Amino acid sequence: MYRNTSYLLLSVLKSRFAEKHSIWSSIGLVLRHVSTTNTTQKRFIQSFVKPINCRFDFKHNCCLTSRSQPLLRQPSSQTGFQLNQSIRRSLNTSHTMAFTTDQRGQQNSSDYRVFIKKGDTGEPVSPWHDIPLFADEGNRIYNMVVEIPRWTNAKMEIATKEPLNPIKQDIKSDKLRYVRNCFPHKGYIWNYGALPQTWEDPKHLDEATGCKGDNDPIDVIEIGSRVADRGEVIKVKALGVMALIDEGETDWKVIAIDVRDELAAQLNDVRDVEMLKPGLIRATYEWFKIYKIPDGKPANEFAFNGEAKDREFAEKTIAETHKYWQELVNASSNATDLDLKSTTLGNSSKIDNQNAIEIINQRQESAKAVPKPIDDQTAIDKWYYITLP
Amino acid sequence: MYRNTSYLLLSVLKSRFAEKHSIWSSIGLVLRHVSTTNTTQKRFIQSFVKPINCRFDFKHNCCLTSRSQPLLRQPSSQTGFQLNQSIRRSLNTSHTMAFTTDQRGQQNSSDYRVFIKKGDTGEPVSPWHDIPLFADEGNRIYNMVVEIPRWTNAKMEIATKEPLNPIKQDIKSDKLRYVRNCFPHKGYIWNYGALPQTWEDPKHLDEATGCKGDNDPIDVIEIGSRVADRGEVIKVKALGVMALIDEGETDWKVIAIDVRDELAAQLNDVRDVEMLKPGLIRATYEWFKIYKIPDGKPANEFAFNGEAKDREFAEKTIAETHKYWQELVNASSNATDLDLKSTTLGNSSKIDNQNAIEIINQRQESAKAVPKPIDDQTAIDKWYYITLP
Repeated sequence: MYRNTSYLLLSVLKSRFAEKHSIWSSIGLVLRHVSTTNTTQKRFIQSFVKPINCRFDFKHNCCLTSRSQPLLRQPSSQTGFQLNQSIRRSLNTSHTMAFTTDQRGQQNSSDYRVFIKKGDTGEPVSPWHDIPLFADEGNRIYNMVVEIPRWTNAKMEIATKEPLNPIKQDIKSDKLRYVRNCFPHKGYIWNYGALPQTWEDPKHLDEATGCKGDNDPIDVIEIGSRVADRGEVIKVKALGVMALIDEGETDWKVIAIDVRDELAAQLNDVRDVEMLKPGLIRATYEWFKIYKIPDGKPANEFAFNGEAKDREFAEKTIAETHKYWQELVNASSNATDLDLKSTTLGNSSKIDNQNAIEIINQRQESAKAVPKPIDDQTAIDKWYYITLP
Repeated sequence: MYRNTSYLLLSVLKSRFAEKHSIWSSIGLVLRHVSTTNTTQKRFIQSFVKPINCRFDFKHNCCLTSRSQPLLRQPSSQTGFQLNQSIRRSLNTSHTMAFTTDQRGQQNSSDYRVFIKKGDTGEPVSPWHDIPLFADEGNRIYNMVVEIPRWTNAKMEIATKEPLNPIKQDIKSDKLRYVRNCFPHKGYIWNYGALPQTWEDPKHLDEATGCKGDNDPIDVIEIGSRVADRGEVIKVKALGVMALIDEGETDWKVIAIDVRDELAAQLNDVRDVEMLKPGLIRATYEWFKIYKIPDGKPANEFAFNGEAKDREFAEKTIAETHKYWQELVNASSNATDLDLKSTTLGNSSKIDNQNAIEIINQRQESAKAVPKPIDDQTAIDKWYYITLP
């Protein structure tokens, strides 16, 4: 039976390999189990680690890379293991894994948090304050923190009022918030997230929209082909911006493309989007306009008649929100309820690595936590048919 | 470590509870592991089985229902366990579990099969030949075998040429077939499947379409709100039918609604669909028209200018394909390469229960099999933007 458990667990892990590189850190739990194997099991284990160019050393009971270095090294606060750095890089050749995630609490519960750490050292960072806005300022490439992968429904967001600003699920009326599916759309139709080191200042009345900021980092929709991971930090180009007025607040939506996307070189402004992805801007407009209607809210409005402004306008808007953020974190005192703790900024909100680790460790490790069953999957799956007059 | 493995496995299983009732059969594997537990673990196990109104009896090392009956009874060919019948019913109050599934082989591989069994006795059936076309003939309610759940991409279908006609993934050019996402759609936009005991006779030239049948049972799209499970048998009302001409063959698409859907009472003909789900018929037309274009095929055509015919026409078409199926299975000899084995029909293709079980047992049990990583998830996730002239 013990063998079956390992098999089943391995199979579950393996099935998730293609979509979740982070699951590999959990394999440490499994690989420690294989010391008492027979030939069949040994062959199975080898076939399991072969796709990542590894072999299992049964004598030393550890998984070795092609350079005979251990795949996992201790310790990680989450699983007791961490992937060998070079392997982690090779597993993510298409990603630049400057950052990794540390998930805490029960998934699908109000306790669930995704903390962000540096990929090389494992040091915690705030995705809002510590990740630089620019990945490459000269080439105008921004970092984007992915909060919501395409086609999912859970409304995940950077917790601006919590230390280290982990990603958590929004709560409305004491319930976890999921966006409804408005036909023909399924969940979010882009990878959705935020640009770090930006802030839509709620005291600032925007000239263009006539509304105040929504007190959050600026939102981004990434329109690339790949479905990103929750908590992933990707490099994007800004292509344009739309000015949603969401319940009376200015809520900029920057339109961006992952620089690794096969169309990235051809997408340089919002007009290119309509050329290469016809209908997407219109669908985006409609999506934001109606997405709260199934929850009994009125249709949202847009400034500029719903028109998407160009790249230059988008970059100017980002620069403004970056300036508001700088004023926020450099103020002599924090007059807001926002949490400005940072592990890298040289301001008064800086905390050291040990403090940051303690903040994360106050929360239960997800590896041992039981994901909560989703209360009403059928309600989340429902398709709403909204027709506007 | 052992405890962590169980925890992790339990958590994986539990996370799937809401969506997959069938996963509960796997819990048998886990529950046999808890005999050496401490108080914390015991409490954990109790909290785990409480949502299904059970308690774990640590003395006898089994899970008891609220009526103190074992949750699992032996033996099942798949896991060594089967869910207690009454619990299975209570877990599926919203389903009529007249049939269950038995999955074999590696998921995401050419070996993967979903066999169908009777819910009460576990006897294998052919979903094509043994499941009655009508669930309730007087009220014109049909059985539908779900092959492809909404929003998924894997092209699963009843294997008409294999004994017991399990559901398998279609292969094209030696590769597992996935339908592409054509913007704004994600995967199949309905629960897709077939009506049992029907056949589109490839020798029969259809008067209405001028084309021959495609040699398969008739296809159904179920437009209800719920995302169905692969291999599930649901009761549906026919509302209309569209006549797709797919690479020169008549390929009827019956439009149907799950009788349990909240709108089922209001949906009685195809015109009701446009009233209650505006845009769905048009989206369906476009979906079928363009879905093979990303694979280099031309746009599909429809008979009747793409118009969806009404319920009466649909029922007439179903009746015809039922008649062709009857002629097929009642012929004195099988002149086709289709597999007509049946466990319930009184014709020359009848096999007994033992033979049927042996057919299934020739294939590896999925519980121990390792799901294959999907070769190129990114390609499956890609969104194609198709504009027709």
